[in-house]
Amino acid sequence: MRNRTFIFKNQPRIHATATLGGPKEGSGPVGKYIDTIVHDDYFGEKTFEKSERKMLEYAIRQAIQKTNFSDKEIGAIVAGDLLNQIISSSYACRAFDIPFLGIYNACSTMSEAFIIGGMMVDGGYVENVICATGSHFSSAERQYRYPLELGNTRPPQAQWTVTGAGAAVLSVRGKGPKLVAATLGKVVDFGITDTNNMGAAMAPAAADTLLEHFKNSHFKPEDYDLIITGDLGAFGSRIFKDLMWEKGFDISERHVDCGEMIYNIAEDEFQGGSGAGCSAIVFNGYFYKKLCNKEYKRIVLIATGALLSSVSSQQGESIPSIAHAAVFES
Amino acid sequence: MRNRTFIFKNQPRIHATATLGGPKEGSGPVGKYIDTIVHDDYFGEKTFEKSERKMLEYAIRQAIQKTNFSDKEIGAIVAGDLLNQIISSSYACRAFDIPFLGIYNACSTMSEAFIIGGMMVDGGYVENVICATGSHFSSAERQYRYPLELGNTRPPQAQWTVTGAGAAVLSVRGKGPKLVAATLGKVVDFGITDTNNMGAAMAPAAADTLLEHFKNSHFKPEDYDLIITGDLGAFGSRIFKDLMWEKGFDISERHVDCGEMIYNIAEDEFQGGSGAGCSAIVFNGYFYKKLCNKEYKRIVLIATGALLSSVSSQQGESIPSIAHAAVFES
Repeated sequence: MRNRTFIFKNQPRIHATATLGGPKEGSGPVGKYIDTIVHDDYFGEKTFEKSERKMLEYAIRQAIQKTNFSDKEIGAIVAGDLLNQIISSSYACRAFDIPFLGIYNACSTMSEAFIIGGMMVDGGYVENVICATGSHFSSAERQYRYPLELGNTRPPQAQWTVTGAGAAVLSVRGKGPKLVAATLGKVVDFGITDTNNMGAAMAPAAADTLLEHFKNSHFKPEDYDLIITGDLGAFGSRIFKDLMWEKGFDISERHVDCGEMIYNIAEDEFQGGSGAGCSAIVFNGYFYKKLCNKEYKRIVLIATGALLSSVSSQQGESIPSIAHAAVFES
Repeated sequence: MRNRTFIFKNQPRIHATATLGGPKEGSGPVGKYIDTIVHDDYFGEKTFEKSERKMLEYAIRQAIQKTNFSDKEIGAIVAGDLLNQIISSSYACRAFDIPFLGIYNACSTMSEAFIIGGMMVDGGYVENVICATGSHFSSAERQYRYPLELGNTRPPQAQWTVTGAGAAVLSVRGKGPKLVAATLGKVVDFGITDTNNMGAAMAPAAADTLLEHFKNSHFKPEDYDLIITGDLGAFGSRIFKDLMWEKGFDISERHVDCGEMIYNIAEDEFQGGSGAGCSAIVFNGYFYKKLCNKEYKRIVLIATGALLSSVSSQQGESIPSIAHAAVFES
């Protein structure tokens, strides 16, 4: 029988990371852990989509530069994003003489990238791989919801798509934090149809993956310094903790959510941050540095993704979700 | 230095495949190799998008049934498609108790799936994996081009998006054709901006990957019974062969294109088929069976993808492309 959890025997290292955020991300609680803060969220481009692409390209370039590797030493870029046809990733990768594997699991893309990139390095197919993703508030709003110019009121269960990008270099070499294990997510759909309530849609997927992880690995919540979800937000995080508690796991003391951490909830951010860029920035900025400093010994990143599109919602479908878990040790 | 080509030491087997096509695909030259022909391209659903999802789900289910495995024995489904946020794949995977890794490299998704799935099996992370993709003429037309109801005239350089889906089960077991090697594609952009001329945009990516493959593997064209591209179409195939010839490789006698093979070019199909479903059906239908019968000893599948979106085109971007190569032996 299949086991959704596997161990990376060769323990790929995070050789370097790079993060970039917009003004709101820069002024939030994790702002000082972000490498580059951009004060113009157009980033010198004419459209938000081009800005999003440039941010991702910038983060990838910075991550490579920190390693002192040449492009030729990077085996692949594993990346995806929220725009239709993942154009941010595809166009960003046009700037590099490096193979590209495009992926998409919505806001779970960061941990999906770590898992696929981890297998590539661990399995000996490449020596170094880039895992990257990003998002942009303004391109996401107009693609998934309404043009900003409409000035729509945001409901209180809404989250705020993070503007920014993060990239990590996984490598056979180095002394960075180790990727030691992963648990694959499966598609879980609890019938939520409110596209503003992503946290409620995604929480069951996170719980499914973490329960599977505990079952397969025989680890308990106490074996982790932190259990980190991607962007459940405040409400989704409560559901997630409740679901785990119902199954006999009290994770309340060690659960944190990147979406809850990234903003000072001051105006319309409501439930906190979301978007593929959310876990990309918070993990590759804040948590990576905490792992390097040995402040944490073992953490698990469960980035969560809502697998809808505007077409699926218009056609009356509920929101299927997914969550992939990647375990890191300092 | 990096090598874009790698060998699958454990040679994962294609344990089974399943294919499904629409009426036009069923009446074409490879129709008799397609497992299931659907005579209603709504497939009993109310929208083309739901039909596309159901076709993919059907192909995955059929492929699993042919192996006699239970869902629990399949380690993951690696799948993607052309719809925004790859909803066909995500919603199809909702029907299975199997982990899901969503991928996207446009019409290169079939070979990308074989490569990622191949690493998962070859590297010992899972025993069996599904590699799947599909597309639908009518959902693609209205997403990428115009609503069908408009009745737009199609230009002669256009291709016809294939309606259908294909799935393969890669496995550590069995006696099927072996996946022996792969060459990763990188993003190549020759500045083509005509979104009806995908063949011209993708041909340079196919040439880049095949040249890299020959360089790394020391194989020559004669070492392959066939060099198969995904959906360059008639014009794109000529460009591809010309580009290879310029670099000293005459592949004219052993090159075939799934897009050129799938239709009787009778009305508006012009350059032939395209779409992720094109190589999915032709490879997993026709070529898989020819490999099983030992009619071919070694073939390479180079599915090609155009990485644009309607937004990138509207913003004046050219069309970046990619091609991943997967080598199979009988």
